[in-house]
Parts: sequence; C-alpha cells; structure tokens
Amino acid sequence: MRSATSDRAWLQAMLDVEAALAAAEAKAGLIPEEAAAAIADTCHADRFDVDAIGRATVASGTPVVPLVRALTDAVPEEAARYVHWGATTQDVVDTAAMLLSRRGLDLLVEDLGCVAERCAELAEEHRATLMPGRTLLQQALPISFGLKVAGWLVATADARDRLAELRRRGLAVQLGGAAGTLASLGPRGVDVLHQLSAELDLPEPPLPWHAHRGRVAEIGAALGVAAGVMGKIALDVALMAQTEVAEVAEPSGPGRGGSSALPHKRNPVGAVEVSACVRRVEALVGGLLGAMTQEHERAAGAWQAEWETLPEAFRLTAGAVDRIREVLDGLQVFTGRMRANLELTHGLLMSEHVVMVLAERVGRPQARDLVDAACLRAVDAGRPLREELLADPAVASQLSPAEVDAALDPAGYLGSADAFIDRALAAYRARSGGSEVR
Amino acid sequence: MRSATSDRAWLQAMLDVEAALAAAEAKAGLIPEEAAAAIADTCHADRFDVDAIGRATVASGTPVVPLVRALTDAVPEEAARYVHWGATTQDVVDTAAMLLSRRGLDLLVEDLGCVAERCAELAEEHRATLMPGRTLLQQALPISFGLKVAGWLVATADARDRLAELRRRGLAVQLGGAAGTLASLGPRGVDVLHQLSAELDLPEPPLPWHAHRGRVAEIGAALGVAAGVMGKIALDVALMAQTEVAEVAEPSGPGRGGSSALPHKRNPVGAVEVSACVRRVEALVGGLLGAMTQEHERAAGAWQAEWETLPEAFRLTAGAVDRIREVLDGLQVFTGRMRANLELTHGLLMSEHVVMVLAERVGRPQARDLVDAACLRAVDAGRPLREELLADPAVASQLSPAEVDAALDPAGYLGSADAFIDRALAAYRARSGGSEVR
Amino acid sequence: MRSATSDRAWLQAMLDVEAALAAAEAKAGLIPEEAAAAIADTCHADRFDVDAIGRATVASGTPVVPLVRALTDAVPEEAARYVHWGATTQDVVDTAAMLLSRRGLDLLVEDLGCVAERCAELAEEHRATLMPGRTLLQQALPISFGLKVAGWLVATADARDRLAELRRRGLAVQLGGAAGTLASLGPRGVDVLHQLSAELDLPEPPLPWHAHRGRVAEIGAALGVAAGVMGKIALDVALMAQTEVAEVAEPSGPGRGGSSALPHKRNPVGAVEVSACVRRVEALVGGLLGAMTQEHERAAGAWQAEWETLPEAFRLTAGAVDRIREVLDGLQVFTGRMRANLELTHGLLMSEHVVMVLAERVGRPQARDLVDAACLRAVDAGRPLREELLADPAVASQLSPAEVDAALDPAGYLGSADAFIDRALAAYRARSGGSEVR
Amino acid sequence: MRSATSDRAWLQAMLDVEAALAAAEAKAGLIPEEAAAAIADTCHADRFDVDAIGRATVASGTPVVPLVRALTDAVPEEAARYVHWGATTQDVVDTAAMLLSRRGLDLLVEDLGCVAERCAELAEEHRATLMPGRTLLQQALPISFGLKVAGWLVATADARDRLAELRRRGLAVQLGGAAGTLASLGPRGVDVLHQLSAELDLPEPPLPWHAHRGRVAEIGAALGVAAGVMGKIALDVALMAQTEVAEVAEPSGPGRGGSSALPHKRNPVGAVEVSACVRRVEALVGGLLGAMTQEHERAAGAWQAEWETLPEAFRLTAGAVDRIREVLDGLQVFTGRMRANLELTHGLLMSEHVVMVLAERVGRPQARDLVDAACLRAVDAGRPLREELLADPAVASQLSPAEVDAALDPAGYLGSADAFIDRALAAYRARSGGSEVR
Repeated sequence: MRSATSDRAWLQAMLDVEAALAAAEAKAGLIPEEAAAAIADTCHADRFDVDAIGRATVASGTPVVPLVRALTDAVPEEAARYVHWGATTQDVVDTAAMLLSRRGLDLLVEDLGCVAERCAELAEEHRATLMPGRTLLQQALPISFGLKVAGWLVATADARDRLAELRRRGLAVQLGGAAGTLASLGPRGVDVLHQLSAELDLPEPPLPWHAHRGRVAEIGAALGVAAGVMGKIALDVALMAQTEVAEVAEPSGPGRGGSSALPHKRNPVGAVEVSACVRRVEALVGGLLGAMTQEHERAAGAWQAEWETLPEAFRLTAGAVDRIREVLDGLQVFTGRMRANLELTHGLLMSEHVVMVLAERVGRPQARDLVDAACLRAVDAGRPLREELLADPAVASQLSPAEVDAALDPAGYLGSADAFIDRALAAYRARSGGSEVR
Repeated sequence: MRSATSDRAWLQAMLDVEAALAAAEAKAGLIPEEAAAAIADTCHADRFDVDAIGRATVASGTPVVPLVRALTDAVPEEAARYVHWGATTQDVVDTAAMLLSRRGLDLLVEDLGCVAERCAELAEEHRATLMPGRTLLQQALPISFGLKVAGWLVATADARDRLAELRRRGLAVQLGGAAGTLASLGPRGVDVLHQLSAELDLPEPPLPWHAHRGRVAEIGAALGVAAGVMGKIALDVALMAQTEVAEVAEPSGPGRGGSSALPHKRNPVGAVEVSACVRRVEALVGGLLGAMTQEHERAAGAWQAEWETLPEAFRLTAGAVDRIREVLDGLQVFTGRMRANLELTHGLLMSEHVVMVLAERVGRPQARDLVDAACLRAVDAGRPLREELLADPAVASQLSPAEVDAALDPAGYLGSADAFIDRALAAYRARSGGSEVR
Repeated sequence: MRSATSDRAWLQAMLDVEAALAAAEAKAGLIPEEAAAAIADTCHADRFDVDAIGRATVASGTPVVPLVRALTDAVPEEAARYVHWGATTQDVVDTAAMLLSRRGLDLLVEDLGCVAERCAELAEEHRATLMPGRTLLQQALPISFGLKVAGWLVATADARDRLAELRRRGLAVQLGGAAGTLASLGPRGVDVLHQLSAELDLPEPPLPWHAHRGRVAEIGAALGVAAGVMGKIALDVALMAQTEVAEVAEPSGPGRGGSSALPHKRNPVGAVEVSACVRRVEALVGGLLGAMTQEHERAAGAWQAEWETLPEAFRLTAGAVDRIREVLDGLQVFTGRMRANLELTHGLLMSEHVVMVLAERVGRPQARDLVDAACLRAVDAGRPLREELLADPAVASQLSPAEVDAALDPAGYLGSADAFIDRALAAYRARSGGSEVR
Repeated sequence: MRSATSDRAWLQAMLDVEAALAAAEAKAGLIPEEAAAAIADTCHADRFDVDAIGRATVASGTPVVPLVRALTDAVPEEAARYVHWGATTQDVVDTAAMLLSRRGLDLLVEDLGCVAERCAELAEEHRATLMPGRTLLQQALPISFGLKVAGWLVATADARDRLAELRRRGLAVQLGGAAGTLASLGPRGVDVLHQLSAELDLPEPPLPWHAHRGRVAEIGAALGVAAGVMGKIALDVALMAQTEVAEVAEPSGPGRGGSSALPHKRNPVGAVEVSACVRRVEALVGGLLGAMTQEHERAAGAWQAEWETLPEAFRLTAGAVDRIREVLDGLQVFTGRMRANLELTHGLLMSEHVVMVLAERVGRPQARDLVDAACLRAVDAGRPLREELLADPAVASQLSPAEVDAALDPAGYLGSADAFIDRALAAYRARSGGSEVR
C-alpha cells in the first residue's frame, strides 16, 4: 500500500489521467490522435523528476501546475498545446485520487479477504475450544474461541464487502473544467467525460462532483470501519495476551516483541501497532467527514485538506490489516489456559445456567434468589459454588449432585455457539464464492 | 425526529423488543403463548413512568434493569417469570436502537426526498439563470444556478439512497444473551433469533454483533455524509446571501432572521443552524467510529458511549435536513443580481473563453499570453477587458469586435451545463421512480 | 453540574448579564439608576417561563431574542426601554457562558481536589503494596500500588491546576454590540465594559472576542485533558478489576454493577461510565477546537455549534470526575492478589533485576544473554526461573542461591518508587496548600 | 519546522537524550565518566544511517531498539555496556519528543511573534480605514479594518503566550525505566533524573509520566488553538478577497495564486493552504486528546499513536503560521473598496445608529418601529434609507436632514473601535516587552 500511495504513485496516476484525457479528447475529435498518442507515450513517471515536481508543488500550492508544465515540456512540440486540454487542476487531482483509491481498495479487499480466510480457519479449528466470554471485562459465560473468531470473521467480511462495493460503485471520474461546466470543451464536454470514463474504466458521474465530497467521505468512512474491525480484533488479542490471561500469544521471532530491557516479555507488538494505526485512521476519517462542507464550485481549504489525508488513511488502514494478518497467521492459542481460566471463579461463571436449571423447578425469581445467595456465600467463604449449592436444602431438594455438576459444566452451556459458527462460515463462503472481486 | 428519538420513543422501542421477544419465544415453544400475549398487552409506554425509569437508569447504569423490573411488576403474575426471558441488556438496547434507527432512517429518507425534489424543481427552473461559478471563493467562469442546484440534487439523492440502503440492509436484530451464545435459550437460540427477526421485521444477522459495531458506525457515517451534504448547500446559500453577493435570501417572516439590534439584516438563519448542526454531527460521528474498538463480548465504555450519541446524531442530521428544506422551499433567488455579478470583473471572468477562441487562431500558449497581458492591463487601468483586447493589434488582427463580444458573452460559454442538468434530473428520476422505499 | 448547566441555569446566567449590564450602564451614566434597579429586581429565573423561552429559542434561532422580549414585558414600563441597552445577542450568550463556565470550573476544581485527596490517601496507604507494573498489557516489573496511584494523583492535580488557572485568568466578559465596536454606547463603551467586568467579577478583555474563540477552545481542551485523566484512572481500574487480575473491585451495593442475568458479576460500572463519558467529551472538544475558524465579526454556524457543546462537555467531564471519586472512595484493594499476580511468571518478572545483578559480575551483554537463555528454558519447561538460573553453571558460578533469591525478590527491586511517591505527595501538598482556589 | 521535526531531527534528539543520560549517570557515579564522554562523542546524527534505522524501526516497532544497537556498535568497546544504561524505550522517545517540542515551540513562538507584530502594524495603519463589520456573513455595522486586525493581534498574541508558557513549564524529562520505578538505577534513580533534567535543561517532573499524557495533549491543544487563530485570519482574508468583496488581495508574484486555466484569477492561495493545514491539525489534536486513556504503565497503542501525530501537528501548525505571515506581510488592502462596500446598502447599514439617535427623542420601541418601516420601504422601493426616513413625517418631525445625514455617516458610528485598538496594542506591547521568550 505504501508504494500504491507513494509520491511516485500519485505522479503516475496524474499522468494516467492526462494520457486518458488526451485519448478521450482525440476520440471526441477535439485533438489530433497523434497528439494524444504522443502524450500517452510521455506519461510515464520515470520520465519525470518526482522530487522537483514535489518542490514546485509546495511553491504553487498544487501538484498539477508543475506537472502540466513538465509534461508540456516533455512531449513533442506539436503535441504540447494539447496537454491538459480543457481540464483543470481538480479534474486531475480528483480523478487520480480515484485511481489510487481503486488500487488501494483492491489491495485492501484482498488483504481483508486473507484475514477473513484465516478467521474462517480459526473458527472451524477452535469450534470446541472453550474459554470464558467476557463482558465489561468480567467473565460472564463460557463461549468457544471459535465463536469469538467467527465474530471477527463476519465483521471482517462485512468491511471487505463494503470496500468492494465502493470499489465497484463508489468511484467516479471527475471532469468539470474550471467551474464544472466543461465550457472549455465546447459542445463535446459530455462526450469527453464519457470517453474518459471508458479509458480509465471508472464510473461516469451524472455531473462533476468537485464540490460534493460524499464520495471521498464514504471511502474514508469505510476505511474507518475496516480499521475499526482490525482494532477490535487487536484489542481482543492484546487482552487475551495479558500475562494474567495468557490465552494467546502473537507469533514470536527475531525482533518481534522483544523488550529492550525485559528479556521475558512477549509484547503483543502487532496488536499494539494496529491499535496505533486505528486511532490515527479514525482521526483522519473525522477530518474527511468534516471537510464535506465546501464552498461553491471549489473549496478554499477543505478540498486541499483531503490531499494527504486520504492516502494516509489508506496507508494506515492497510498497515492495520496487514499486521492483523500477521498476528492471526502465527497466533499461538493456549487452549489449556482458556479452559483453566473458565475455572477461575470456581463455578460462579456458570451461575446463570444453574438459575436456568433451577428455574424449571422453582420458577425464575426464586431460582435467582437461591443462586444469588449461594454465589454470595461462595465468594465470602472462598469456596466452590458447587458446595454452597448442595449445602442449601432449598437447592439440594430440587437438584441432585449430578444435576448440579451438569449445570456447572461449561461444555453443557454453549447454547447456539456452534450454530452461530456454522452460520458465520456459511455466510462467508456464500459471499466469497459469489463475489468475483478483482 | 425529536419525537422519534425521545425518551418515550426509546422506552417504547425497548418494550417492543420485549414484546417481540416473548412472542418469538412462544412461537419457539419456550414460553406459554398466554404469557407472551400478556406481555405484549402490557408493553405500551404510556403504562410506564418514563421519568422514574430514567432516574433508575442513572442509578443502575442501564435502562434495561429498571425497565424489566417495571415490566415484570406490570404483567399478570403468571407471565412475570417470562419477561425478558434469556435476553440480556444489550439485546434490548441494541435491537431497540435498530428500531429507532429504522424509524429515523425512514424519516430522513423522506425528508431528503423532499429536499431532492425541491432541488429538481429549482434546477429545472433556473436552468438558464446565469451566475458566476466560483472556485477558491473567486469568480471563475459563468455557470447556471440550475447547474449549481443540480449538484446539490445529486449529492442529496446519493445521501438519501445510501440511507435507504442502510435501512433495507444495514440493520439487524441483536440477540445473544449474556455472552453471545444464547445459552439461556438452550437449543432454541437460533430459532428464537429467527422468530424475533420476523416479529420485528428486522434482518437476521449470522451471529450476535454485540461487540462488532460496524453497523452503528456505518449508520453514523451515513448520517455524517447526509449532514455534510446539507452543510454544503447551507454554505452555498450563506455565501450567496452575503450582502455583497446578494444572489439569494432565505425565506423571511416573523421571527426569522431578524437581528435584535439591526433592523435591516436578513440573516441566513436557516443556513447558520444547519452549519451548527453539521459541525456537531461530524463530532458525534467521529465518536461513533472511534467507539468500534470494543472489548471481548461487551465493551467497557465504548458501547455505552453510543447510547446518547446515535440518537443525537439522528436528531441533528434531521434538524439540518429539515432546515434545508425550509430554506429551499422559500428561497428567494435574485436572478438579476446573479447576472450583474457576472459583470463585476468587466469581462475578466470570460478570459478563458477568449483564450480558447483565440487559441484556435494562434495556438494556446500565445493566446494565453495575449489574454494574460490584456487582463493585466485591464486590471491596472480599471478598464473593460473588451477594450484592452481590441486595443491590442495582435488580438484585433485575429478577432473581430463581434467575435470578441461573442467570446465575452457568458451565455455562450456554459459548456455542458444544460446537459449536466439533464443528466442529474434523469438520474434522479430514474432512481426515485424505481426505488420503492418503504 | 447538571443543575449548574441546566436550562434554568442558562436563563439565570443570561438574566445576570442583563442585570449587570443595566447596572454598569447606570454607573456609566447611560441609563437611570432606577431603571437598572428595576431590571435587576426582575432578573430572577423563577419569574420567567423557562419552557416558553426554550420553545421561542428554537423558533428564533437564539435564546436572547425571546428572553429580552420577556424581560422587557416584565419590568416596569419606565425601565423597559433600557433593557439590553446597546448589547447584542452574542454579548449575552457569551458572557453568560463565561458565568456558567466559572461555576462549572469551580465545581470541577473542587471535585478534582477530592479525587486528588483520595489519591494522596491511597498512595500513602499502599506505599508498600507490591503489584506487577505492566507495559503493553504485559507484566514488566514490580511496582507498588501506591506508585500507580501517585501517578493518578499528579495527573489529577495537574488537570485541576489547569482548570483553576483558566478559572482565574481564562474567562472574560464579552461586550461588543452589534459588530464589536460598542457603537450603540457612544463614547461610553469602554467604560461600560469596565463596569460590567467589575459587576460580574470577570476579567476585562482588551477588546471584544466574539469571533476569536481561543478562550472557549482552551476551556474545552482543559476539560478534555481532565476527562482524559479520569479515563486513564478508569481504564486502570477496569483492567485491574478483570476476573483474571482481580486486584481491585469497585464499591458494591444495591443496584451497583449487578448483571441482569449473571448473579456472580461485579461489573466495574463506575469505570465503564467514566470511559463512556470521556469518549464523548473528546468528541465534543474536537468540535470546539474545529469551531475556532469563524467568519468576520460573528460566525455563521461555528459559534452556534458551541452553545450546547460546551455545557455538555462540562456535564460529561463532571460526570466522569464524580464517578471516579465514587470509585476511589469505595475501592476495594486486594493486596493479596496483587502479590500473587507477581508470582505468576515464576520469577520471569524479575529477570531485569537478575540481569542487573549479574551484569555487575560479567558485564551487561553476557548477563543479558545468560538470563535470556534461562528465561527461555523456564518458559519452555514451565519451571521457575530460579531453578533455571541455578542450573546454569555460568550463572551459578557468579551468584549464590541467596543472591539469586535476593535478585528475584520483588520487594528488593522497587527502585525509586518510594521516593517518587514522596515527591508526588510533596508536590501535591505544596500546591494545594498554596492555592486558595475560590 | 520541517527540519526541526525531520527524521534526522528525531534521531539527533534521541541521541541527545542518550548522551545526556550517560552524562547524568556519570555524575551520579553510576557509570565511568570516560564512558559518558565517549558516548557523547558518538551521539551525532551524521554518524548514523537515518534510513537504515528507519527501516529497522518498522521491523521492531520502535526506533530505540535499532538506535541503541547502532549506538552500542559505534562507541568504543569499553563504553558499549553503558549505552542506554537503565533506561527504556519510552524514556528516550518521550524525552526526545520534549526536546523536539521545545524547539518547535520556540520556532512557533517566534513566528507567531512576527505575525503579531505585523498585525500591530496593520492595526495602527488602518485605524481609520472604514469597512463593514459583518455578522452571519451580513453587513452589520461599520468597523475599521484596524479593529478587525486588532482582534487578530490579540488572538495571535494569546496563542503565542500560551505556547511560550508551555515551553517554559509544560515540558518535562521522562525517565522511569521499564515500569516507572527506575529500578535499574538502584538507589540513584532520582539523582539521575535530576541530573538528566539539568543536562537537558528540561523541567524535572515529580515522577515518570509515561502513562499520563496530559503534557502531550496540552501541547497538542495549544497547537490546535494557535492553528485555529491562523484559520480565523485566513478565513477573514479569503472572504474579504472574494471577487464581490475585493477588500484585500494576497501578495502576488510568480507562481502565486495563478490558475492553470483562468488568467484573471487572484486566488487566495495562502489562506487556502492555511485552511487546509488547520483542518488537519484539528483532526490530529483530537487524536492526541483521545489518546490520553492509556493502559497501566505503558499503553498498548495510544502512546504509539502519538509518535507521528505530534510532529505532524507541529509541522502543520508551523505551516499555517508561516503562510499567514507571508499573507499579511504582503497583503494588499483596498481601502476604497472597503469604503464603497459600506455604501452597498444605501444607508441600511446605519439603521441601528438612526434608531439610537431617534430613540433619544421618541423612545427606543417607537424609534425601532419607525426605522424598521423605513428600512422595509427602502428595500422594497430600492431607494436610499435617507429618503425614506425624511419622507416619513414621524421621523422628519424629530430629525433634521443634517441630523439624518450625521446619523447615516459611518465614520460617526465607530463607538469604541479606536479605544479597542489602543487597548489591544497596549496589551500586546506590555506582554511582548515583558516576556523574554528565548
């Protein structure tokens, strides 16, 4: 992604737009085909000095002015006058941004697909791996690690699908000329717009969208959501990797997670980097959303604020996705510890199940009262819930020791976990099979 | 929208969820049909004390605990034990949020439709109303007011379509029980989920999404984009309404836009309120995106931060849409002033056209040089560009006075403005005709 | 705080401004003293219909228009003409916001002082309570709980001092009239500004600040920082309260942290609410910072966006501070569990100390290598680090078992923890003793 | 600023910290003086491969690990073991960030001083330059351009003073070792902290602040406020530079503000760039505030998110300040146009004054009614307010034509504008004279 959004990639994208524009105008009969061909021949980034254009960009406040100048100088003299014909800076910048976004979306869709695939594997593999489900950072009920990962899978696949949808339908050529009328193309404006869309294989908008930035904001928001999904996975990993929880560890290896001072540490460096990326993406996306309020036919600042923000959002989102892939690919899962953590509360974790079982005999309100009391005694006395339950005649008269044991067995209280995993996998397979994302 | 997101609306939505849950569980054979019927009979907000539940919410940190208590007290004794059967707080809060979001999205889709329709009227009506196009707050080229409004139309319709799409496919029932396994429903969890989806006519998710908030973030982002579109329209209106521009005025009337001290002012109060709303929405949406990173099976803060944020985002977005509708419904358009503003630069505004016309004779580089020089002299001398052009033999030898006049006529340099308006209207009509948004 | 920022409090603050304005103008000889006295007599919120003014605010887009109308109606006829003399809406709204901010800052300074005081107690009390220090969510080195709390103390006291400083120097009267010239007060404008400052005991700015919002943004940022400090404490509490860590628990009691379905849970509800508040504050503060870019002599939206945002930021920050106070006041500290958690890594946590001790004999590089190897073997074999160290002749030849034991004793490796606690307490006492915050 | 926050500047700052740490430890008797001297001799960025360290940073997730490795390799063998003695990554990164912040704050204080000085000149120069004051983008009352600029001056000087204060008191050495106890320095931790503070001339904090980020958030917020002030000035400039307003123009020159297609345009490119920078700074600052909630003794993501955010915030703020300085240095002020714009409403702008004058005769309510009516007639008939006023016997019987003319003269209704300018200049001179900001 870094190379897909580098200065050089930007330059090439702008050159691609200039070449396609000339081709479109030649097809529309506005400029000679030879000129278009000559321009296309010249539009290769390696023929230009990226750094010099970068410096001139700072001076002129736009990358297009120096680019057009350099391109005009580089083409044969007879083609020079047809360079950038009838277009304005924003046409080139916005359409180039769409090209880069297409590439960025393709890369992200692919990488998110890898993350989803890995989640699918893990969900299947750990379908029967019991662990504590946790709400508000407290153990709540047993779940399976497979179910947790199935949740990651669905969220990842949803984010991927949204990006894929934007890639198919959310992009568009921008071509409006100086004020959105394409006046400089005379009566051929719409024709050139149509041809340019075809040349670049980008959707053709009803009209120029120079001051209507919903398109960019939607891409930004979708990146934010994708990054947020990675952030959620990273947070789960980091929390499970805590020394006291120790249910997973990130892949180890030279230079990965070692502390400069503490030889024993296995830092969740991947999750940490993801978390850092995600926070930065969210800030950038907020900036893109806030930049939608733009003046008249071209904004005085809000548009320009998008220039570095959008590629940075792509880079950071891609960084997060990439790191999650690494983390999940080599994730060490300590199933024994997951199981052991289920026992930490000496049965309290299963109290809901006991309530449910007991409720069938005595009604829920009384069942809840009895179990609450037993839990309280168990906590106060530091004894297993099993003992306290059986010590209470009101319970013991309703449930046999074997029934209590069954009620306290985590494996017997997973509800629809397996069914949910099946549904998640089925939904994922159905969508992935059908969508021929390029 | 205020009533659709009021405390009472929240209460009713949560009661609707409880009633539907009981009905679903009765269908699944988990609880008696009579109990479900009794619960449904009781689930009317006017049977409860909204304020008392509100106060208890503050104390217990969740609205569901006091609601379930009040509901349990209110139903016949034999149904009491089946209230909230197997569900957890988040199931009720999230599903109720989906119900409110559905209502909110419906209202917004409708209101945005009204704004779009009004834009369509204005675009048609002002197809030939010339005005300056402005980039970076400088006059750039002539456009028509109809074209400007056609841009608003497309952006508004896009935002509406996105919200309509989310209303159709972006919502979902949440039902997971204490940790997302529906363990408390035994083997009937998936069945109840299915029935509940049917009862509430909400999409059925593959698995519970309690800790995966892409759904909420997407709604938030779409609200942000819709609000951003309103913000763009409001900004255009406020800028056009400036004393020195005076191309439009907001509808006047008692209590609208009067200054407490300045009797002559016609403040663009609608646009101002929209701008204020939009800024606040963007901040809230940033909060929703940032809240995606949630812990394990229920977040310790990020989820709770959504509670007031999402309805507030709906309210403010609806406020912005509503105000824009008012502003556009009664917008005064001063076509004479638009035309007059085109003359402010004494022809400079048309210089690109002169370059284009002259370029056909002498090539673009020379044409640009000649016109640049004439513009410079015109500015320095404070004289019309026409005079300076004709005073230059290099120009006068190429273009006749009539040709210069034609080149300087704004009406002759609108390019594809009309075609773009047609395309915008056609796209809008096609989509609005086809989409049977319920 | 809720009452300090209620609609009624706003109304009273605006009435206070109107009364003080009349008094200032009477002192400046602009209006009769009797009129000022009559206005002051009328300016009590309970004489007005808060709801009616609220509804009229929505209609007119500003609270001041209906307020001035109601006040004018309520004063004796001969005073009516002097109501709101020469002032504009923004003067009243902004100065009232400063009065509310002063009250809000006073409350926050006081509440943060309580939090700081409680931290000071805890830091002293738990000076010798050993626990694991954790970095990147991994156990790193032993610390004392007192040191952790001393960090909270310094951060809290810093935030409090910043708010106290803003309360002393960051507020200011706003009085500019319709465009910031006080033209309507003729030659007495500066005099009235001076008197008004005196009346309200608010700093007198060099000139009106209607369109320069640094003052508001700074208050917002300081609230954000104060909230952020509470968020950090809340996060530490929630993490320590995790089932697997169990080092602290929030105060229990009826209605506090009980789960609707899981009788055994002790949810960190206070920390969760703080986290939710803090996220929302940060979003609001971002909005206030972004609203600094305001047009000319009064903004068309950005100023209006502040109106509800600033009091909401106060409310949420106060909510966070208040909850942290509750949490810390009744915090249960499980010192045994803290100590036990130190043993979880079977000595690995002390590896840095072993490196340091061994380095004195063999140099750091070799010491690090030896300890790294021992750690690796300990992890692989699941054996205590002590055994692995003593089993390695390269170590055993340098360190006796007693020396190894000493190196592995957490209490012997607290470094400057105690000194840091002393410094934190001394700094806090010095500042708190000296600052007579009113 | 770009060089002050470049990768090389970061490297040098980290090396400065390592050198100072060694010196401090030598003074504390922990390491040999020769080692410290050798380390100091080596700590020059040009002795290291910035790019190689950058690449290794990506791999290891922290810049300090490869830096310490390179530094250890580069020093004489006998000093190698003392490199980075007892410190941890965060100590170096945070303290280096403080050094860079100090340099950044110095540069900003200086540049903001230049902006303020230029504002002071302009305020004095344009003390009598009349122009319309505008509220809600509508002309409200006459002001002087000097008064407008005096507002910029005060806001700029306030932002500068806040940054200067942070530079003096808001920075601090960070030194805590692996978990904030400085355990690795044994009993000398506090001593080394003290010496390090002296070496680097940075304030000494009571205790390590690794997980308490108020310091960084405050710097960020102050940058945000400074940027916001620049944004306000830029917005005023861009609005005044509008074609229809034409009261100012940015300095012209080759490559400045020229359009690629429209030869006549004088784009406010400086203001546009400032606006873009400011939007981006605000997003970054929001990220810094949101990153205050950090885990335990070192955050798992939020801290890392600061690394690139803070220097980027410095760069963008400095870019905004620098551009505003350029804009104001060469600002063209069209005083004739300012005056002409005052006449655009044919007297309506002066209606408040007429109300005030008339109110002295007939009371304010009646005066307001009469003037309102005259304004309405003037607008409807497109005639000057003067005529309508004199045509109304109820007015003409109270005010002579000369009195009406006087009431309509903008120069006679500037109120305290001059006094405010004096106060702004006096406050500025007093502060700037007194503060010996280094």
